[in-house]
Amino acid sequence: MVKPMKIKGPRGPVEKELEEVERELETALCSNRPLIRKVGKHLLSTRGKRFRPMILLLSARLNGKNLHPLAVCAATVVELIHTATLIHDDSIDKSELRRGFPTVNSVWDDDVSVAMGDFIYSKAFSILVNNKMYDVMQVLAETSHRMSAGEMLELEKRNDLDITEEDYLMIISDKTASLISAACEIGAMLASPHDGTRECLCQYGHSLGLAFQITDDLFDFVGRAEVLGKSVGNDIRGGKFTLPLIATLKNASSKDRARIHDIIAKSAFADGKWEELLALMDEYEGISYSRKRALAFADEAKQTIRPFESSPAHAHLCSAVDFTVERTQ
Amino acid sequence: MVKPMKIKGPRGPVEKELEEVERELETALCSNRPLIRKVGKHLLSTRGKRFRPMILLLSARLNGKNLHPLAVCAATVVELIHTATLIHDDSIDKSELRRGFPTVNSVWDDDVSVAMGDFIYSKAFSILVNNKMYDVMQVLAETSHRMSAGEMLELEKRNDLDITEEDYLMIISDKTASLISAACEIGAMLASPHDGTRECLCQYGHSLGLAFQITDDLFDFVGRAEVLGKSVGNDIRGGKFTLPLIATLKNASSKDRARIHDIIAKSAFADGKWEELLALMDEYEGISYSRKRALAFADEAKQTIRPFESSPAHAHLCSAVDFTVERTQ
Repeated sequence: MVKPMKIKGPRGPVEKELEEVERELETALCSNRPLIRKVGKHLLSTRGKRFRPMILLLSARLNGKNLHPLAVCAATVVELIHTATLIHDDSIDKSELRRGFPTVNSVWDDDVSVAMGDFIYSKAFSILVNNKMYDVMQVLAETSHRMSAGEMLELEKRNDLDITEEDYLMIISDKTASLISAACEIGAMLASPHDGTRECLCQYGHSLGLAFQITDDLFDFVGRAEVLGKSVGNDIRGGKFTLPLIATLKNASSKDRARIHDIIAKSAFADGKWEELLALMDEYEGISYSRKRALAFADEAKQTIRPFESSPAHAHLCSAVDFTVERTQ
Repeated sequence: MVKPMKIKGPRGPVEKELEEVERELETALCSNRPLIRKVGKHLLSTRGKRFRPMILLLSARLNGKNLHPLAVCAATVVELIHTATLIHDDSIDKSELRRGFPTVNSVWDDDVSVAMGDFIYSKAFSILVNNKMYDVMQVLAETSHRMSAGEMLELEKRNDLDITEEDYLMIISDKTASLISAACEIGAMLASPHDGTRECLCQYGHSLGLAFQITDDLFDFVGRAEVLGKSVGNDIRGGKFTLPLIATLKNASSKDRARIHDIIAKSAFADGKWEELLALMDEYEGISYSRKRALAFADEAKQTIRPFESSPAHAHLCSAVDFTVERTQ
């Protein structure tokens, strides 16, 4: 197992609150029912990066005032929704490892994944209702809806080699960027409900989310399994064609396109075929183009928050962007 | 395929509103994304009984006043949540047929089931948020949480022949009765927010829900596949042990208990073994005991609403109870 990564840099100004989030997550995933408790403990032990709670809390700190008393609660709920979707996604993708730890579907099975995902998702909404956080709920209900619509679009485009960059961006906007954007928007909403900060942070989160997902998708081609904590090539094997491949296919000669189609159709990745595919992606700049796109979205994110006064929170929101595109897992 | 059943009797006083629910369901399941639209159309074509919207609307009519303007919306949302859980449950149970129609997991696959269930579930919460139905949301967030906790408990007790009647009642309280009870409670809440009707209808729905599920579980032993629209013996094959078997095992001699354990452990239901199991369940009154329990809960439900003045809605809520225990599918 690899060690879970910690973003040491950008956590700074919200370190204490992130520890509170951790405690609230423990409470939320606790239950007197043994199976729920076991799966909950497993999930907590795999300690994620808590990236979404972090940027929510940083966004809530951007105006320099004291943190809203419900910011930690909102950050916890966002992480719960993220966790619920990860469990369902891992089950759908048949992933065996996440962050170097076995997934719920591999320790238990898909049935437990479906039910536990539902349990956590409904827990998140219960917490919001019980705290009468109706504005936050408005954002998160819409976001959850977009995330599942994105998942459905991804399934629709599965095994479709004609998928376009536009389709891909729509999928990752809905599936990934929407929750990152919602986290930033909610932080801003709680801190400054009446100025334009909300729209601005929403846009920051959207660009950051796209940069985040494109970087993640690149790992499936250029990552190293022992660093990633999961194997590479999973996306293609599962018929999930992401930007590096889409860009390669767009640029490739018809002969090479046919060659790539053939490798993928036969799922023939052994005997040097995977390396051949990577060489073609290199030749047609699928990898470098994707990298450029991720960096451009990262730059967009930073531009969006440029108008804000410099502050520790501001500096850390910028570091979060850099971290997103520079990370190795 | 069998023809979908319609409860002609109890629909009477809310027939018109149930047609509105049908139209709202069509709108909710519509999408410009082809896969969502296709699965949505499939779900609508399998036309369920709309039992939960019906009892919600009847409950909302019990005080004789005009129907609350959001009652149809609440009924639609309850049916959406029910539909989302059915899709996930069918995937977990590997069911191939529901109401005589192929399930989402059999027409598509488990991945589409997980994502479409999530989509419908989040749609339900979006509708509630957009209509600012916060009290309804409070009830349904808690209910969804109980439903998934019930599903987890059922998975925990899967293949456990020591499961008790108490465990079983806890599972069906959470998984099934909670939503039926919530439907009645919401109807009452909308109609008469300030008297004791809400608690009373909540209790009615709870007893009705238990009667409903015990009857449903009996079908797995004594139903006829061509009437049910699904095959029998599925529960036992999936390691889901329900009241008829629990009661049989409790009463059986140690020799017969060992015999039953053996049949189930080997999943040996061919060559007359299924008939042997049924004969033992008959001998030890597992079937008749379950039937009696269902009737007792049905009676409890009717007793609960006895204090209300007689009205068409009241009469139909009583018919709904009779229908629940007398139906054949």
